[in-house]
Amino acid sequence: MISINGHRLKENLEEINNFGLNEVTQGINRVGFGEDDFKARRWLMAKMSKIGLRTWMDKVGNVFGRLGPEDGECIMSGSHLDSVPEGGKYDGVLGVMSALESVQAIQDANIDLKYAIEVVAFAEEEGRFGGMLGSQALSGQVDPEWLENSKDVDGIKLSDAMASQNLNYKDALTSGRTDIKQFVEIHIEQGPVLEKSDLSIGIVDSISGTSNPLYTIVGEANHSGTTPMHLRKDASCALFEIGAHVPQLIKQHGSSEARLTIGKCNFFPNFPHTVPGKVEFSVNIRDTDSDKMDSLDAAFLRKAEDVCQQGGFALEVDRSLGRLEPVSLDSGIKNVLVEEAEKLIGAGQYTVMPSGAGHDAQQMQRIAKSGMIFIPSQNGVSHSPEEFTDHEHIVQGTQLLCNALLRLATS
Amino acid sequence: MISINGHRLKENLEEINNFGLNEVTQGINRVGFGEDDFKARRWLMAKMSKIGLRTWMDKVGNVFGRLGPEDGECIMSGSHLDSVPEGGKYDGVLGVMSALESVQAIQDANIDLKYAIEVVAFAEEEGRFGGMLGSQALSGQVDPEWLENSKDVDGIKLSDAMASQNLNYKDALTSGRTDIKQFVEIHIEQGPVLEKSDLSIGIVDSISGTSNPLYTIVGEANHSGTTPMHLRKDASCALFEIGAHVPQLIKQHGSSEARLTIGKCNFFPNFPHTVPGKVEFSVNIRDTDSDKMDSLDAAFLRKAEDVCQQGGFALEVDRSLGRLEPVSLDSGIKNVLVEEAEKLIGAGQYTVMPSGAGHDAQQMQRIAKSGMIFIPSQNGVSHSPEEFTDHEHIVQGTQLLCNALLRLATS
Repeated sequence: MISINGHRLKENLEEINNFGLNEVTQGINRVGFGEDDFKARRWLMAKMSKIGLRTWMDKVGNVFGRLGPEDGECIMSGSHLDSVPEGGKYDGVLGVMSALESVQAIQDANIDLKYAIEVVAFAEEEGRFGGMLGSQALSGQVDPEWLENSKDVDGIKLSDAMASQNLNYKDALTSGRTDIKQFVEIHIEQGPVLEKSDLSIGIVDSISGTSNPLYTIVGEANHSGTTPMHLRKDASCALFEIGAHVPQLIKQHGSSEARLTIGKCNFFPNFPHTVPGKVEFSVNIRDTDSDKMDSLDAAFLRKAEDVCQQGGFALEVDRSLGRLEPVSLDSGIKNVLVEEAEKLIGAGQYTVMPSGAGHDAQQMQRIAKSGMIFIPSQNGVSHSPEEFTDHEHIVQGTQLLCNALLRLATS
Repeated sequence: MISINGHRLKENLEEINNFGLNEVTQGINRVGFGEDDFKARRWLMAKMSKIGLRTWMDKVGNVFGRLGPEDGECIMSGSHLDSVPEGGKYDGVLGVMSALESVQAIQDANIDLKYAIEVVAFAEEEGRFGGMLGSQALSGQVDPEWLENSKDVDGIKLSDAMASQNLNYKDALTSGRTDIKQFVEIHIEQGPVLEKSDLSIGIVDSISGTSNPLYTIVGEANHSGTTPMHLRKDASCALFEIGAHVPQLIKQHGSSEARLTIGKCNFFPNFPHTVPGKVEFSVNIRDTDSDKMDSLDAAFLRKAEDVCQQGGFALEVDRSLGRLEPVSLDSGIKNVLVEEAEKLIGAGQYTVMPSGAGHDAQQMQRIAKSGMIFIPSQNGVSHSPEEFTDHEHIVQGTQLLCNALLRLATS
């Protein structure tokens, strides 16, 4: 067995996290196609080049470092370097640095590889312009209409943001590759499941789909004093009735991986002495089972329609944010990861689990057999300066990644 | 019977509503102690002076016009001239103009009065600084601490706003009067009850009290995908459960005049992909029965405490906005209004009803036997340019006011 170098990994993580670091909050600010994102990418390229990997950036900003045979299919591992504003020090970057450390350990051991191993740092995963642009481009899944029209929250066009890094956005349509045999991504869980179960490794078998309808319920705004309860059309009451029904909907229609979140909600006019005439709210529905996702989505809509019909409310549902289908990752890669985990940490120390959040691996699965490793997130916190993962867990996860990559690249 | 002059009343209403009129929206903008509020007050003073009423402004901006005996107790009638921003053309000003028309009709008829009748236009009823300042000052109920500290939404101090109209705010503590025998206010209903019942007159017997606690429920913000339902502390779920229980609370604890409104509500961080870690909401509880108001308030709190305890949420309740007790208006004045309504429009055309909204009459009841007349509001709309009351209803209500004032002032 080749041992990865935990100390080197820690130093690399710390060094790259100087890019975009807010010294006051300790938050990471490397938004996709921003200056700090690209400084980090150039740092990574210099690093990989220096240790002798063949290194390049493709036309959408994905960075690669290749060890082993110059030609032929490769085994790829990595994640993304961009962050949400005020993000944490592990989300994405950990997957890139773990892949680099794995490759460096294999390189140090001077082993002949049957397949090359490539480290990848995907571009714009976090969603400044929608997310997973780098892995979508690599797997040939970029929507041309979205590409033309996408803007960030400040109204900056994707095309302009890419141009500021000397990239032509149209190249996202022609950056696909067909020479990636297998893909393995390590990522922090960003949730509480591993920690609550006292496990150090999760092997991801599927990634939840997500549906994001926006609901608007319209009643009548009225004076809170002069309007008797029976003459009101209080839109908040419709929301409360629908919202209180969610636990039952989940039980009836969802799998154990079902999630339904009403995360954003605005009352109108939002004044203490006025009966709310309108409420707008987002519904985020996730499940690893596409049918159950459909069923939950439809059941929520049916409940909303019933409540609104009975109370005389108008209901609008905006589905323009679309829907992402659940993705099953490759069972062969999963089995390799399970076998290697058994060897490394033994039974009872890991679990096979779905991912509730989206990851580059779900795009890569379209063109390569893909798998994922999760390591615990302290308190399940992510997208925040409080994001934290024990170095012990990082080392263990990276060792598993290294062992799996070595096996895949030599067999 | 003396007939009021509906045409003159209409002209006066139209003329005074030129002050603060937004020509585009037709909204009225006469915020308390603002320029347009005081232009309207000076116009009223000139008008009353011209027809021979003894006319003055007191030290808080209340305007008076007196007909009849120079000394001794008076019968007072009126309402306020100030408006909310973009308010309507009837709220407050109708009560002043109806009182003026009644007095003018009595004056035209050359009748000897046992008691003087005074028209009043109260200052700052609408709440730029809290509301009902004029009637509170007249009835000796101004809170010195509030007077010192009150600011409007722009941070302008009450003392500065009053100084801009050459008034000294400290005089609000010494502007009480003890020579007001009876007080009658006519006002638009601002609600849908009269219109829905096809009635043209409401005689108000009580005014609801109001309690305005602010609730904060704190759970845990989490990723909407990675956090399983059973590991969440979703503050919105607590809100939904409490809110859905309101109809039952009203049934169990409120009177038929009970109102409970969750009018303002903010989610945090209010992002579609984040489980809400916190919700803040206003609760507006009203009832004409003080005990039932207490009971409803306590039952809502108990429900919130139960839900939060079961779900592991932290609950904070801020009661700094205080509480206004329900007020019973004078039964003798009510009986006079009922008898005069019977004579004027006959049984079945009016109703005795509570007021869900606050009015100057509730302050005046402390120092004078007080009563109120309501006339219908189209669609129950108020505090809006869409506020509307048929002129026929205005004339009928004003005639009732005139008849009642004449009876009170001569018997």
